[in-house]
Amino acid sequence: MQIDLNCDMGESFGAYCLGEDEAIIASVSSINIACGLHAGDPHVMNRTVRLAKERGVAVGVHPGLPDLLGFGRRDMACSPEEIADYLTYQIGALQAFCTAQGVRLRHVKPHGALYNRAANDEQLVRVMARAIARIDRGLLLVGLAGRDNCRMAALAAEEGVHMVFEAFPDRAYTPEGTLVSRRLPGAVILDPEAAALRVLRMVLDQEVEAVSGAVVPLAAQTLCIHGDHPQGAALAAIIRARLEAAGVMVRPMRPV
Amino acid sequence: MQIDLNCDMGESFGAYCLGEDEAIIASVSSINIACGLHAGDPHVMNRTVRLAKERGVAVGVHPGLPDLLGFGRRDMACSPEEIADYLTYQIGALQAFCTAQGVRLRHVKPHGALYNRAANDEQLVRVMARAIARIDRGLLLVGLAGRDNCRMAALAAEEGVHMVFEAFPDRAYTPEGTLVSRRLPGAVILDPEAAALRVLRMVLDQEVEAVSGAVVPLAAQTLCIHGDHPQGAALAAIIRARLEAAGVMVRPMRPV
Amino acid sequence: MQIDLNCDMGESFGAYCLGEDEAIIASVSSINIACGLHAGDPHVMNRTVRLAKERGVAVGVHPGLPDLLGFGRRDMACSPEEIADYLTYQIGALQAFCTAQGVRLRHVKPHGALYNRAANDEQLVRVMARAIARIDRGLLLVGLAGRDNCRMAALAAEEGVHMVFEAFPDRAYTPEGTLVSRRLPGAVILDPEAAALRVLRMVLDQEVEAVSGAVVPLAAQTLCIHGDHPQGAALAAIIRARLEAAGVMVRPMRPV
Amino acid sequence: MQIDLNCDMGESFGAYCLGEDEAIIASVSSINIACGLHAGDPHVMNRTVRLAKERGVAVGVHPGLPDLLGFGRRDMACSPEEIADYLTYQIGALQAFCTAQGVRLRHVKPHGALYNRAANDEQLVRVMARAIARIDRGLLLVGLAGRDNCRMAALAAEEGVHMVFEAFPDRAYTPEGTLVSRRLPGAVILDPEAAALRVLRMVLDQEVEAVSGAVVPLAAQTLCIHGDHPQGAALAAIIRARLEAAGVMVRPMRPV
Repeated sequence: MQIDLNCDMGESFGAYCLGEDEAIIASVSSINIACGLHAGDPHVMNRTVRLAKERGVAVGVHPGLPDLLGFGRRDMACSPEEIADYLTYQIGALQAFCTAQGVRLRHVKPHGALYNRAANDEQLVRVMARAIARIDRGLLLVGLAGRDNCRMAALAAEEGVHMVFEAFPDRAYTPEGTLVSRRLPGAVILDPEAAALRVLRMVLDQEVEAVSGAVVPLAAQTLCIHGDHPQGAALAAIIRARLEAAGVMVRPMRPV
Repeated sequence: MQIDLNCDMGESFGAYCLGEDEAIIASVSSINIACGLHAGDPHVMNRTVRLAKERGVAVGVHPGLPDLLGFGRRDMACSPEEIADYLTYQIGALQAFCTAQGVRLRHVKPHGALYNRAANDEQLVRVMARAIARIDRGLLLVGLAGRDNCRMAALAAEEGVHMVFEAFPDRAYTPEGTLVSRRLPGAVILDPEAAALRVLRMVLDQEVEAVSGAVVPLAAQTLCIHGDHPQGAALAAIIRARLEAAGVMVRPMRPV
Repeated sequence: MQIDLNCDMGESFGAYCLGEDEAIIASVSSINIACGLHAGDPHVMNRTVRLAKERGVAVGVHPGLPDLLGFGRRDMACSPEEIADYLTYQIGALQAFCTAQGVRLRHVKPHGALYNRAANDEQLVRVMARAIARIDRGLLLVGLAGRDNCRMAALAAEEGVHMVFEAFPDRAYTPEGTLVSRRLPGAVILDPEAAALRVLRMVLDQEVEAVSGAVVPLAAQTLCIHGDHPQGAALAAIIRARLEAAGVMVRPMRPV
Repeated sequence: MQIDLNCDMGESFGAYCLGEDEAIIASVSSINIACGLHAGDPHVMNRTVRLAKERGVAVGVHPGLPDLLGFGRRDMACSPEEIADYLTYQIGALQAFCTAQGVRLRHVKPHGALYNRAANDEQLVRVMARAIARIDRGLLLVGLAGRDNCRMAALAAEEGVHMVFEAFPDRAYTPEGTLVSRRLPGAVILDPEAAALRVLRMVLDQEVEAVSGAVVPLAAQTLCIHGDHPQGAALAAIIRARLEAAGVMVRPMRPV
């Protein structure tokens, strides 16, 4: 049995540092590197690819909307063509740093508003899958684990790309299997041990307990460790330890 | 006998249009595409790669400093590592658009302040050559034709990259074989026919007449057509016609 | 009888030129100057304030969303506080250029997505009016002329700012008095004479003929000349000539 | 006897936090607020002006070069006109937030490369003084305390602006009275108590001990507390305490 732990990294920019990349990378199997449109810069990208290589974790692209000021979290009325071009640009930019260091690029996990919109927008999934497929059909596309995963995966496959679905150990779920909005109380699970217990259930039983108490089926191939969780590094370490103690191997994501 | 005609393209940005790409591309054999740091954007890059593919011209990267406001023309005190990372980023971003359209990337021609500095800065040539070589040793590095070309080419070769040298049909030269500053009167040769005559001499005799009247040896493998010349498209067409009439084939650049 | 003709200006950026500011300014009484977030830059702002001073036209701020790549036309999910701060920033930046040249700042006309959203968003109008009032209660806020103008003006007045409403001579109107989307055929009236006829009806009879043939009441204190109309300068000149021939004075905008 | 303690603040940007503004502001009498070109954003500016108002400290502008990626620390080949326009833009932007909150703007302290260049560039001092004077002759211009202060102050006064000179408690000085480059060992004085001792000597005796052991005269009206000093808040608190214990009042800067 195996699962991937991923974390967004390389989100620093110029003089601005963000995240505890060096502390968290010890516990994850994949990282998603920002590419300069919503966060990250060429220097940070280079350094983060090097870090991933040294630690032997899988590298993915973390493309975002061109909104550094809003950190890519604000939805923008971009056309499908614009989004496809933003993806292509960011994948290529990171690809070059990977090539220069002999690292293989494995996956694409959209960031922020792009990620959130993709969870409910079939056209966007198609557009992103198509853009990725034109560059490298071996790249996996990461989406939010949920009810529509079969249909989303089928759409992406039609465009030539495999999908991988992601769950959030430190986030509360609704009875519908979606994430509770961060604006609501209790949306973030702060206690690392509580999050680790949820992880075991997600991985071993493919389910999560919603805020209502209902048990919701949830099939994920990768779990996201939030670098901005108040105890990000501890959270990652505890989750990894509990998984390994339960006989689950932490390995880079693979398609369903 | 053959020569390359190149032109900087894809320098539009968002709602801003710059250059007569569609008119000039008919007469050149190579284009250098801006990559978003000093000019260009993902959408423009995509469109320009498509245009190059349709017209069968060779595609190169035109990387610049991260100064959209100054169009990459203002020198900035960047470290060698920063410049290497800016090159890597921009080469990769354009590479992805090329891959998506099945176009091969051929060369790298630095832009503006980066280009000017490289003409006299051995360390910068080394840094750029090394960055390019780590991505693709088949990419040619374009520099200003002049006295130091042998040494520059040797440095680049040590890092793993071939150089190609460029002359400017519409620019006056000093007796030392450098460009007369644009701030001086007569620096730009406005008459396309006069420029075409200079081109023939550059190509057939590998020399140029300096402002002093002295004849200066000048060996170039590519000639730059300025898209911002007041008669850019006419200049390109006349130069090409005169070259072909003289039995010179206009072909993508090749290393010395 | 009097009316204001306004035009968005100062939308160039760095090496990028946009609009025929020098040609159009001869025919208008007010200009709206971009402030660097969606278009314009400090150098362009300075030059445009100087131009306005030389030509004796009234100067207003043309604030936009922080999206240079999308020219402020793409809606972004900004919070009210963010929008208020973007307005404050842009008003202040232009104010300094006006102060430096002894020019009085008269009005604020939001740009693009901000303008469009304000036409239907009472909260946004309140937010913008409040931000303006905290800087200078003498600044007028420009909005789209339409059915809700009384309510919008009342909201703005509660926050301490007077509104002025704007109609578009070169745009087709729906029977509801809103603008026909630019994506639909016939949305833009290309013939300057046809536009000038509509202007006379707008000013003299306070009405416009909609695409359906219905006559719609429309009370505007200012008319927008689009700098990006294919015949912008001619459009402005003809409209001004027809207005003056009809005895209507072209004067800077005044509140209702 | 009195002295000003100033600190650069408002250097956060979007999701990126920088500096311990809330902790340090308790100990200083003036702050310099970044304005969005090298750091800061409209939201951060608003918040920082509010913080200054609540704490009763004097507010100044901290304008920088348009290089967010390089944090304004990299010199750029900008023309004097460009620099004047960047200053005007940034002063105005901050002025609007001050006006909105009823706060008076007091001074202008250039940032990074701009500050460093101004220490040796008479033309730049003139250009900046002129730009400031055109907006508000009451704004003080802050420069590096050193040998050329009389001449610099005279130049600025000719343009209509008073200067104030600044010393650095946590920086080593050369025997010439300039700062030891940060790249050299010992350039930064890490121990707050040692820095406080230097402050007393700077204020009471108007001198500093250089790295050579030589005593150098140094007349400063304001002392800079570095927010990025590893112990910034402690440094500020100790310096203030030592000053007050010695009977020196900490008050906003005044011209010589």
